[in-house]
Amino acid sequence: MQTAGKLFGGFSSATNKRDIGVRVISAESPTAQQAEELMETMLRPQDKAGDGLRKRFAENIRRAQLEICNAIEELDGGAKFHEDAWDREGGGGGRTRVLAKGNVFEKAGVALSVVYGNMPLKAISVATEDPKALADETDNLPFFVASISSVMHPRNPFAPTMHFNYRFFDFENSSENGLWWFGGGTDITPSYLVEEDIKHFHQSYKDVCDKHDPEFYSRFKSWADRYFQIKHRGETRGLGGIFFDDMNDRDPEKIFAFSKDCLDNVVSAYVPIVAKHKDDDFTQKNKEWQQMRRGRYVEFNLVYDRGTTFGLRTGGRVESILMSLPETARWEYDHKVEPNSPEAEILEVFKNPRDWV
Amino acid sequence: MQTAGKLFGGFSSATNKRDIGVRVISAESPTAQQAEELMETMLRPQDKAGDGLRKRFAENIRRAQLEICNAIEELDGGAKFHEDAWDREGGGGGRTRVLAKGNVFEKAGVALSVVYGNMPLKAISVATEDPKALADETDNLPFFVASISSVMHPRNPFAPTMHFNYRFFDFENSSENGLWWFGGGTDITPSYLVEEDIKHFHQSYKDVCDKHDPEFYSRFKSWADRYFQIKHRGETRGLGGIFFDDMNDRDPEKIFAFSKDCLDNVVSAYVPIVAKHKDDDFTQKNKEWQQMRRGRYVEFNLVYDRGTTFGLRTGGRVESILMSLPETARWEYDHKVEPNSPEAEILEVFKNPRDWV
Repeated sequence: MQTAGKLFGGFSSATNKRDIGVRVISAESPTAQQAEELMETMLRPQDKAGDGLRKRFAENIRRAQLEICNAIEELDGGAKFHEDAWDREGGGGGRTRVLAKGNVFEKAGVALSVVYGNMPLKAISVATEDPKALADETDNLPFFVASISSVMHPRNPFAPTMHFNYRFFDFENSSENGLWWFGGGTDITPSYLVEEDIKHFHQSYKDVCDKHDPEFYSRFKSWADRYFQIKHRGETRGLGGIFFDDMNDRDPEKIFAFSKDCLDNVVSAYVPIVAKHKDDDFTQKNKEWQQMRRGRYVEFNLVYDRGTTFGLRTGGRVESILMSLPETARWEYDHKVEPNSPEAEILEVFKNPRDWV
Repeated sequence: MQTAGKLFGGFSSATNKRDIGVRVISAESPTAQQAEELMETMLRPQDKAGDGLRKRFAENIRRAQLEICNAIEELDGGAKFHEDAWDREGGGGGRTRVLAKGNVFEKAGVALSVVYGNMPLKAISVATEDPKALADETDNLPFFVASISSVMHPRNPFAPTMHFNYRFFDFENSSENGLWWFGGGTDITPSYLVEEDIKHFHQSYKDVCDKHDPEFYSRFKSWADRYFQIKHRGETRGLGGIFFDDMNDRDPEKIFAFSKDCLDNVVSAYVPIVAKHKDDDFTQKNKEWQQMRRGRYVEFNLVYDRGTTFGLRTGGRVESILMSLPETARWEYDHKVEPNSPEAEILEVFKNPRDWV
């Protein structure tokens, strides 16, 4: 079980025990060169050589991490991302980039990790939604997982929170045993419903999906609606997006291309919405409702989110795992929304997810 | 498993499905008569007749609930408790009393519940720390559990949070099968260390314990230090107190008397500390540190607390379960305390629990 927690998202990538020190570098002008240099330290020699999928996936998430952070910094116009870096002995490591106390963003984080480990086959059955009939096997299998995860919490109550995570699992000799898969998704969590924003967000992901498979969008949109349920509330965390896991039903290159397109869509799906609302007027009541929805975000992440719950229970780096929590949150006993209010309007959609495109 | 969640604390007492409506009553001058009237609706006829332990335990927690709420209202000098009430068909019910937005208290809640249910013997093994070798039994056994739980969150960063919970489990024919036990505890969670306050708190509970058994205090103090661990942080939630569970090693009347004395000690152990600090001067930095410790409180309750986690997963009344959460909380990425600061001083004690008496 030790390793299982590390498999979910970049948040749970590095154990304190195996870190060989944390160094903080500023990364105000990340370059392609920086991305390449990172791979030098993160990948094992056999994965660095050539042009294998492990290397290309890892390079791609580093490139995306730097590009997305640049776009967010530009939008924020104030705070900069700072990077905490871990390298693990024998290859692998993590780069957690956090922007805090910005003009536009209360907290924004993008975490990347590359982990080499050994996983009991038994653990694989809990690490995925598809147990792959491995529950009785106890042998350890060497694996590689590269992952990028992010949560962005803007200040303005009318600017939504956004989360994404893309990951690639690959076990030793996976071309023989078929033990590899991709997972990921991007979802949006507003406090107030602005239909055209949510339509824009979902349409942009439908467009990406449709390029790859006409069935993807409806399948992955429903999956997000199911996954992001706060079960004890009977509410979704937000207004969804796409979510997929255990994907290995076709040529891995095709899934990589899909995963890459999803990641490249983050900025154009999200940034315009925040740009539009970052300076909206708001009342104290709007702010308190946002803070209560932040409380729901905390509830989902601490009680249900797979990456968070397994990461915390299995010794992941706490600060990277809990980077996803908002700066502030609020709980009011038995809070009721006013009938026909904007708060009631979006709560109804959290209770009954809607189609947007 | 449906019933298991209801066994932990008063927070998880009533399911929405079986409620027969919620009525809100003001309870500004609760009387002994009110306490007796409650028992009329809450207890089943066979438990109402005579002077059995079920009745006396339930009457006692109702009396204590009203007395403690009165003491807190008096200290607050502003807000009043309001009561949400549920009666369950066939006996049982809950009374959740919450004071919000007070002068002194951000949020204070005292929840009482009496639940009659049927529990698979198998579930009993997960409902206690002592599985009682019942893990393979699948028969249902009728049970009764009465419980009082409370969390008080004051506003001032120098006034500590306090939690208590006392409960009595009793299965059918328990005099034959020995299936009954008491559990409970009271613990304190300051943001800043004021040694004399913590000594007062612990000493008062040691005095109560010593009246009943010279071994109780050290055993139950260590139990609290273990139970209130935020494992992923390597920190305790606060500075402990006492915690016990599965207690059925002597005459139930003796344990009831101990449990009663513990509950009657809450006001004198806690109220003077808040009275002393409620008007302390504080800085923005003090407030932010308190808010970060509130964040840790949320982490403990949502990730580890038995009552909360089982309650949420098994359909308890969400608002009663999550009454324990603070009004507001804060998370800062990778926050570090300044060396030799008051924040560093108490953090050291959270990491290495100390003896106080």
